[in-house]
Amino acid sequence: MEVKKIFLPESEMPRQWYNIMADMPTPMEPPLHPGTGQPVGPDDLAPIFPMNLIEQEVSTERWIDIPEGVLEKYVIWRPTPLYRAYDLERYLDTPAKIYYKNEGVSPAGSHKPNTAIAQAYYNKVAGTKRITTETGAGQWGSALAMCCSFFGLECKVYMVKISFNHKPYRKLMMQTWGAECVASPSNETEAGRKILSEDPDCPGSLGMAISEAVEAAVGDENTKYSLGSVLNHVMLHQTINGLETQKQMAIAGDYPDVVIGCAGGGSNFAGNCLPFVCDKIHGKEIDIIGVEPSSCPTMTEGPFAYDFGDTVQMTPLLPMHTLGHNFVPAPIHAGGLRYHGMAPIISQLIVSDLIRPVAIHQLETFKAGVTFARTEGFISAPECNHAVAMTIREALKAKEEGKEKVILFNWSGHGLVDMAAYQAYFEGQLEDYPLPAEDIKRALADIEPLPKPKQYRAGNL
Amino acid sequence: MEVKKIFLPESEMPRQWYNIMADMPTPMEPPLHPGTGQPVGPDDLAPIFPMNLIEQEVSTERWIDIPEGVLEKYVIWRPTPLYRAYDLERYLDTPAKIYYKNEGVSPAGSHKPNTAIAQAYYNKVAGTKRITTETGAGQWGSALAMCCSFFGLECKVYMVKISFNHKPYRKLMMQTWGAECVASPSNETEAGRKILSEDPDCPGSLGMAISEAVEAAVGDENTKYSLGSVLNHVMLHQTINGLETQKQMAIAGDYPDVVIGCAGGGSNFAGNCLPFVCDKIHGKEIDIIGVEPSSCPTMTEGPFAYDFGDTVQMTPLLPMHTLGHNFVPAPIHAGGLRYHGMAPIISQLIVSDLIRPVAIHQLETFKAGVTFARTEGFISAPECNHAVAMTIREALKAKEEGKEKVILFNWSGHGLVDMAAYQAYFEGQLEDYPLPAEDIKRALADIEPLPKPKQYRAGNL
Repeated sequence: MEVKKIFLPESEMPRQWYNIMADMPTPMEPPLHPGTGQPVGPDDLAPIFPMNLIEQEVSTERWIDIPEGVLEKYVIWRPTPLYRAYDLERYLDTPAKIYYKNEGVSPAGSHKPNTAIAQAYYNKVAGTKRITTETGAGQWGSALAMCCSFFGLECKVYMVKISFNHKPYRKLMMQTWGAECVASPSNETEAGRKILSEDPDCPGSLGMAISEAVEAAVGDENTKYSLGSVLNHVMLHQTINGLETQKQMAIAGDYPDVVIGCAGGGSNFAGNCLPFVCDKIHGKEIDIIGVEPSSCPTMTEGPFAYDFGDTVQMTPLLPMHTLGHNFVPAPIHAGGLRYHGMAPIISQLIVSDLIRPVAIHQLETFKAGVTFARTEGFISAPECNHAVAMTIREALKAKEEGKEKVILFNWSGHGLVDMAAYQAYFEGQLEDYPLPAEDIKRALADIEPLPKPKQYRAGNL
Repeated sequence: MEVKKIFLPESEMPRQWYNIMADMPTPMEPPLHPGTGQPVGPDDLAPIFPMNLIEQEVSTERWIDIPEGVLEKYVIWRPTPLYRAYDLERYLDTPAKIYYKNEGVSPAGSHKPNTAIAQAYYNKVAGTKRITTETGAGQWGSALAMCCSFFGLECKVYMVKISFNHKPYRKLMMQTWGAECVASPSNETEAGRKILSEDPDCPGSLGMAISEAVEAAVGDENTKYSLGSVLNHVMLHQTINGLETQKQMAIAGDYPDVVIGCAGGGSNFAGNCLPFVCDKIHGKEIDIIGVEPSSCPTMTEGPFAYDFGDTVQMTPLLPMHTLGHNFVPAPIHAGGLRYHGMAPIISQLIVSDLIRPVAIHQLETFKAGVTFARTEGFISAPECNHAVAMTIREALKAKEEGKEKVILFNWSGHGLVDMAAYQAYFEGQLEDYPLPAEDIKRALADIEPLPKPKQYRAGNL
């Protein structure tokens, strides 16, 4: 019988994370201080992050040991299975072999605990008592809540108000794991009060929630802030995914021609693809595709520039693809992909032509998700459907071309807590929200005064 | 490092189901025809089930081959991991070793696809075009919907109206997998119309939904009916769980002193425990515990008697522990445990003193579920929390007694689609609904006119 799932035993789980900073074809630009415009140093970040994570943020060591305390929790769901999508292949009648890494088997249902475990652990070690964070659709907030409960840390989550109201199950997951979750903008922070005084009915945004969570951490020495994506150390922690996948592909006797992931802040995509990017830097031919929503086309339409991570301009300026920190994405159901920026690492790899970004409309992603559910069984999170849709495009292209391609995609999580999105799809209420050129231009006006972006066009590859 | 999950490779997945009918210490009483009161034969069942499943229902072969077509789908999530609950053990400070079989990794999130795959497969082979079924909380309906989509069968689910309204996500899962789901009682069947004419606001019950689904199948030769629990062939299909567990316990180098599962109709419990019951029949000392809600104490308070499986008395009379087919359980959140009867196989094993039933109040089960989530990570379905609660009782008893017991329980599914139940718990709105003796007496009045129950008191063990 065909082997459907390639498992690794726990004893084969990687013991180190892979740090692509050691292999970047061009050096990364530093984050800049929001006040001075000068590169930020570790001391600037100390009020919000513990020093052990700041060290990881700036490290250029290729391999970083995963502490025993993190490994002990990873085994709750890791190594995750690598699947062969036989039934999807047959349905599409494609000569392509399709593999997917199933990150949905974690208790939180997504890849987010890969870094949440690590961040909770390092904070615990550093003496932190309480962690604040923001969450959009709730995948990150619920993952951090779980991991804080494992290490006996308090956890406070500022959840974008519109999601807080629309996704009560995520909030309840956080509560079950012992965290406190409030709707953002809230009356608990200056940032929140300022926003509410201008617009009492403000539905919130990820940028606003970050402002609140950062403010709440800065004000208390026992409290630190945690970010679920974008930053270098988050990408680092997620690489356990891709490192496992490489071992599993080797067991399967295949190597991917195409690697696909959806990208909001970039962490699930980075986690799976960075070890393959390393192979590509060292000569392998791979098409590595990051998929984003057409309604929030950060990678495909946003310039590579310095911009703030949040709305009220508290965070350092990061060198990244961005639509501007005031950009408010359309209300698509893939809440995790509604972010104006993109991880600096992913952004720079795009500029270096190592990663190819593609934007896909919402309706195509849900159609793909339903096809996937009816063939492979699993119901994907709306974010993840972007990767499924791109995979189907590539598989059909392989069919047209008659090529025996190997396609790998990262199945970042299930959608069982997001079924309202499927309801909207079935009821014909979903829209594509294509973004008119003038809207993009307007959005980008915000970042024109910022330092000019440097362009690294794969020159020294 | 400690091994957390014991995996079996797909090549080690059992190739046969275990049929306990070959080992029952006392012969089973036959189901009786509702009209004549005579034992039903295969022909009586032919209008609702395909003949291949009827043969399994009455088979006394110890081992039944699992068809290749079923195995090919089982590998989507099977073999499921056996977990060691190190963190729960540490939290309880118990000398007991706690293992749990994680059936929540299926795409539907529960054990239900174990039989749904098999039933869809056998129906497909027999030429069935369309399957009808009932569902309470929706675990069964969603599992069957998925499996019908795999085999290209139409699927129609009559969902208890109160759950239909309270659990929209389950209904949407069914829709995503291509099934049609209607609220029961509906206007689509005579049974439904009759009930609605007497009580237009009737919230429905599992017994009523069964009546509707059976009626819809009987009227159309291309349509068959499918039941997600209670019947012998359902218990049979579920035994793949226990057979895997036995192999995994052997790998772990342990054997359970206690085996625990929650029991509504009995299928998840049977699936895990029947292979261990076989060992017990052959001399092993094991305490095998079925856990039910105090508000629906079928096993602990209901007599072993002949009763109908449904409300309007269309099904055969089954020999089982029952609270009477008119019993309407309190609105506890463990919808899957709100059934008046219990699988004949489980019922008879109770009478034979091979299984020990225990009833637990709702609040204790949710408290246990929160403890489990904050230590092991996974959020359990409300049904499953009954098994968790009993496990905690046994672990604390082992601590009191200073005994190094091995406890195994069946973690039948996650609760991510049932978070509203946790909300009610956190908001202090849950009740225990203890059942007054007079209510039980009143409920049982229904079954007094039925043939006298035979008592099998472990005489010939």
